[in-house]
Amino acid sequence: MTVNLPSQQELSPTVDVDLERVRRPQYGRYLDELEPGQTFEHPRGFTFTRGNILLFSRTFMQANPLYLNAQYATELGFSDLPASPQMVFNVVLSLGVQNDSEKAIANLGYYDVQFLRPVYPGDTLRAFTRVLERKDRGPDKPGIARIRTVGVNQTNNVVLQYERKVMVAWRGDRLPTTPAATPSMPFPDEPLSQVDLPLSGAAVTGVLSGPNTAVEDFSCGDIIVHANGRSITEEHMALTYLVGNSHPLHFDGEYSRSLSGKMSGNPIVYGGLVFAWLEGLASRDISERSVWELGFTEGYHTQPVFAGDTLGALSRVLAVEEAAGLHGYGIVTTQLIGVKNLTAAAALDKYAEDLFIKEDSKRALGKEKISDKIFEIERRLLLTRRSQ
Amino acid sequence: MTVNLPSQQELSPTVDVDLERVRRPQYGRYLDELEPGQTFEHPRGFTFTRGNILLFSRTFMQANPLYLNAQYATELGFSDLPASPQMVFNVVLSLGVQNDSEKAIANLGYYDVQFLRPVYPGDTLRAFTRVLERKDRGPDKPGIARIRTVGVNQTNNVVLQYERKVMVAWRGDRLPTTPAATPSMPFPDEPLSQVDLPLSGAAVTGVLSGPNTAVEDFSCGDIIVHANGRSITEEHMALTYLVGNSHPLHFDGEYSRSLSGKMSGNPIVYGGLVFAWLEGLASRDISERSVWELGFTEGYHTQPVFAGDTLGALSRVLAVEEAAGLHGYGIVTTQLIGVKNLTAAAALDKYAEDLFIKEDSKRALGKEKISDKIFEIERRLLLTRRSQ
Amino acid sequence: MTVNLPSQQELSPTVDVDLERVRRPQYGRYLDELEPGQTFEHPRGFTFTRGNILLFSRTFMQANPLYLNAQYATELGFSDLPASPQMVFNVVLSLGVQNDSEKAIANLGYYDVQFLRPVYPGDTLRAFTRVLERKDRGPDKPGIARIRTVGVNQTNNVVLQYERKVMVAWRGDRLPTTPAATPSMPFPDEPLSQVDLPLSGAAVTGVLSGPNTAVEDFSCGDIIVHANGRSITEEHMALTYLVGNSHPLHFDGEYSRSLSGKMSGNPIVYGGLVFAWLEGLASRDISERSVWELGFTEGYHTQPVFAGDTLGALSRVLAVEEAAGLHGYGIVTTQLIGVKNLTAAAALDKYAEDLFIKEDSKRALGKEKISDKIFEIERRLLLTRRSQ
Repeated sequence: MTVNLPSQQELSPTVDVDLERVRRPQYGRYLDELEPGQTFEHPRGFTFTRGNILLFSRTFMQANPLYLNAQYATELGFSDLPASPQMVFNVVLSLGVQNDSEKAIANLGYYDVQFLRPVYPGDTLRAFTRVLERKDRGPDKPGIARIRTVGVNQTNNVVLQYERKVMVAWRGDRLPTTPAATPSMPFPDEPLSQVDLPLSGAAVTGVLSGPNTAVEDFSCGDIIVHANGRSITEEHMALTYLVGNSHPLHFDGEYSRSLSGKMSGNPIVYGGLVFAWLEGLASRDISERSVWELGFTEGYHTQPVFAGDTLGALSRVLAVEEAAGLHGYGIVTTQLIGVKNLTAAAALDKYAEDLFIKEDSKRALGKEKISDKIFEIERRLLLTRRSQ
Repeated sequence: MTVNLPSQQELSPTVDVDLERVRRPQYGRYLDELEPGQTFEHPRGFTFTRGNILLFSRTFMQANPLYLNAQYATELGFSDLPASPQMVFNVVLSLGVQNDSEKAIANLGYYDVQFLRPVYPGDTLRAFTRVLERKDRGPDKPGIARIRTVGVNQTNNVVLQYERKVMVAWRGDRLPTTPAATPSMPFPDEPLSQVDLPLSGAAVTGVLSGPNTAVEDFSCGDIIVHANGRSITEEHMALTYLVGNSHPLHFDGEYSRSLSGKMSGNPIVYGGLVFAWLEGLASRDISERSVWELGFTEGYHTQPVFAGDTLGALSRVLAVEEAAGLHGYGIVTTQLIGVKNLTAAAALDKYAEDLFIKEDSKRALGKEKISDKIFEIERRLLLTRRSQ
Repeated sequence: MTVNLPSQQELSPTVDVDLERVRRPQYGRYLDELEPGQTFEHPRGFTFTRGNILLFSRTFMQANPLYLNAQYATELGFSDLPASPQMVFNVVLSLGVQNDSEKAIANLGYYDVQFLRPVYPGDTLRAFTRVLERKDRGPDKPGIARIRTVGVNQTNNVVLQYERKVMVAWRGDRLPTTPAATPSMPFPDEPLSQVDLPLSGAAVTGVLSGPNTAVEDFSCGDIIVHANGRSITEEHMALTYLVGNSHPLHFDGEYSRSLSGKMSGNPIVYGGLVFAWLEGLASRDISERSVWELGFTEGYHTQPVFAGDTLGALSRVLAVEEAAGLHGYGIVTTQLIGVKNLTAAAALDKYAEDLFIKEDSKRALGKEKISDKIFEIERRLLLTRRSQ
C-alpha cells in the first residue's frame, strides 16, 4: 500500500476554534460502571524481551540467578531466561488498570495470586478481568469491587491468575468513562490448579545461587532480618509506565496535589513497585534457590510510599512442606513485611511481634497500627534442597 | 591479530606536565561555520533493538499497541515491532546535534517532518544534514540557519526527512570547532514524496487499540482534553544521552548555570523528549489505531521545561480526509498543544481559544503570549476506520 | 514435573511469633574473614544483551561507535555489538562485591586491569576472586586486602583480570558473614599476557568515529580539556544494581546516614559509575577510534561523588607507541582526571600542573590535596591510524 506525502502545510490558522466542541475522555471505571459478571479484555498487551526482563530483575534487586543468568536458567530446564514472576504480576496488573482501577481510590488487597506458566523473551501477554462482586456501602461512600484477572500469552494460555479488591467511588455527576471493547474470547472462569514445570532436575549447586536459601535452611517460625535497604527516588514515576500502569496517582503531580487526605502531595509509588523492591531486598535470604513462585495471598499496602523513602524488609517462615512427588524440592511459605524510614533491624526492635500481625486485625486485638509498616503478604516458593 | 599485554606500569610521574600543550576541542558549529550547501554525515549511528524500542515507547507513555506489542505489529503486516516514529525522530535529530546544533542557542522550529520507512530491531540509522540557508541579522546578533536532515538505515534508504531552524551565534573570538568528516555518500537532495506501507490489511478490532481513535471518532474542529499529566524528573538528563543528544544544555549543570537569561539555572529538558511525552499523553485519545505517522510541521517549543514541571496536553482536529486508494483508512490531522504546571482542563478554562493560536502570531493579533504553554505542532496520522 | 496449586490459605495468624528465632544474615567479609590464598566464586552471574550493552553505553555518554552501532562493529571484525570494556569492568567488579567488598570501608585502588576477550550479546559472565595479601595495621585499625579478580564467560574463558585494594575493618563483636560456596573450578592463577583481537583490518574512515582520535592526533604531553560535563542525579542508586553492585553505601539512605565521617549523609555514587561517566566525557576526544581497551592501572577515587554533583574530565597523553606487528594501529596511554562542581577548564586554570599529580604523592611533594578532584587513572588504548 502506498501513501502520498505531499509537503505538509499548516492548517491551524484556517480552522476556527469552536469551544462547543470539547471532549474530555475519561479512563478507569466508577463504581456504577462495574457490574458483577462484566468482563474486560484490556488494551495494548506487553511484549517481553531479554532486555526488559533483565532491566526489571536488576532494578528491583533480584538475587535469584534464574532471572539474571540465561545460562543458569537453561541448565535448570527453562527454555530461555524467564521473566521473574514479580515482573509478570506487575505487568498483568498494570495492563488492567485502564479498566479496573484507574478511577480507584485504593488498592485494598491481593488474593490467591498464582503463576501457571513461564514467560520468556518474545512472549506477548494480554490481560482479562471479570468483576466478581460489588459491595455497595451506601450512596455517600465508595464501594468495594472484587475482581478476578488472568494474564494470557500469545497462544492464549493463562500464565497468571489472581483476585484483587479495589475501593471505588460512585460516579455521581462526573463524566462517564470511555466504553470498553467487547472481548475477543470468553473469560477463563475456572481457576487452574496445577502447573507443569519446565525443570530438568539438574542440581542447583549453590555456587551461583548463594549459601542461604535451600529448603534445609528454613524452619517454621524463623524470622529473618534482611540486611540492606533501598532508598526510592523519583525513578518510580517512569517505572510505573515501564510496567504499563496508567493511574495518574503515580506520575502526575497536578493530579496528586488536587487530592485530599494522605494520598495528597507528591505522586505515590505504585504498590507493585514497592512489592518488587521488598521482594528483591529479601531475595538473598529467601529465594536465591527458588525455581518457581507458587503464589501470593493476603497482600496489603498499609501505608503509601513516596520518593525519598527508604524501604526495609523482614521475612518470617510460615511453613516448610514436602513438594508431593518432587524429590529434591520443598515448598516454603514466608510472610514478607515492609517498613520505611527505619532499618528492618530497628523495626523489629521497636515493634517486636506486632510487626507480623496483620494491620487490619490490629483493632480487634486492641493493638495500635504501625505507621512505619508499608506492606504485608504471604508467599509460597518451590525451593531446591541442598541434598538433591 | 594478537596484542601483547605486559603488566601495565604507571607512567604519569615520568611525564612532565607542560601547560603549553593544552587542547580544548569544541563541538557544534557557530554561525560563521555553517555555509549554505554544506553537507554533514553525522558520527556514531544508532542501533535499534526490541529493548530500546520498548523502553522508549513505555517511558514516553505510548498507548498505541503497534509500538508495544510485537504480536499486534506482525498481525498488522509489520515484519517485527517497529520503533515509534517519535523515537526515530528523537534519534535522528540527536545524531545531528554534534554538527547541527551543539552550539545553537535555540531550536526555533520543526518543519515538514516525514516518515518514509519503518525502523525495526536490528536496524542501524545514520544521519545527514545539508545547510539550506543562513540568515544573518548583523554582526552583533545571532543568525538563523535552516537545515535539512535525513536519517538512513543500514541499506542507505531514507527513513525520515525534515527541516529545522536553529538560532546560532557568531563565533567571534571563541575557539573554532572540530572539523567535520567528508561524507561517505552524496546527500539525498530530493525529498521523497510517497511511502510504501507494510500493511497486511488486517482489521484492527479495537480490543487492543482502544475504543476512541478510529477515523469515525474525529471531526474537524473537535477539541480533546487529555486526562492525565506527567511530572518530569531529573530522569531527563539520562534520557537525553539515551537518544544520543550531546548538547550540554540538557545535562551539564555547570554549563546551564553559566548561561544568562531564561535558559540559565538547571538543565533544560531536551525538546524532543517534551514532544515525546506530550504525544504519549495524547495517544489514548488520538493515535491508538494509528498505523502510520505521516508527519509533523510547524512545531515550536514556546517555553522551556525543567525537572519538576508537570506536563499536560490537548489536541484539536484540523482535518479528516480520505486516504486515496486506501479502503478502511483515513488521514486525521491534529494540532497538539502542551502546557505545564496546570492541568490541560485548567489551561483550556484559563486561555480558551487563545491556546490554539500559534505563539508567534500572537503579537500581530494583539494577543498576549501564554507563559504556561510549552509546545505546539501539527501532526498527520493514518488511522484505521471502525468499519473496515 | 507437575505441582498442585490449591487455593492459597492465609497462614500467618496460625504461626506464633517467636522472637528467639531471629536470623540476621550478613554479606561481605570482614578483615578477619579474608585469608590470603582464599578463593571465591561469586554468585549470580550476568547475562549481556544488546539491550543492556546499549543502555550502558548511552547512559555513560560513550561516543565510540564500536559500542553504539552494530553495523560498524561487525565491519571492524567483531561478531556482534560488543559490550564496552567499561561495562565489563563495572559488571565483573560488581559481581564480586558480595564476597570482596560489601563490608569494605573504602575502595583504595584499581591495578593492572586488562581486557582479554570481547563480550557479546548472549554471553554470561561469572567472576572469581583470590585474596592475594592482607595487610594488618593493628587491632584497632582497619586493614588492607589486595585481591585479584577474573571475569570468565560461559565457556570459562577469561575476559577480564585485575587487582584491587580495599580497606576493611576487623569483625570485632559483629555478626559473622554468610559462608561462601566452594568454587566449581580452580582459580586461574597465571595472569594472561596477550589478547587475540577479532579485527578484520577494515579501515576506520573517521566518518562515524569523529575527526579527533586517530593515533596521529596524539603526542606525549598533550593535555586535553573535555568540553562538556554531566550532572549526576539520584539515578545512580538504580544504576548501582543495574550493574549488580550490592553495597548499601550506594542506595540505602538509612545505612548512609548511620555512618560517620565523609561517607555519611546521602548515598555515595558507586565509583565504577563515576569512572564510566568520566570515560564517556573524554570519549569524543580520546577514544572514538579505539578498537581495544588494553587496560587501566593506578586508578583512585580521591573524593566521593553525590547526586547533584556535576562531573568534568581532562586527559593527558602519557605515551604514544607502535603496536608491534599491527600495521595501521598504535597504542596511546592517557591519564584521565575527574573533577566535580567546576568545569574541566576552570579546574585547569585553578590547579594547573598539580591536577595531574597523584593525590597520594602530594604530601611527599609538599603539595596540598585537591578537594575538587575526584578520580585519577591511566588507560591504554589501541587506536587506528588515520593513514591505514
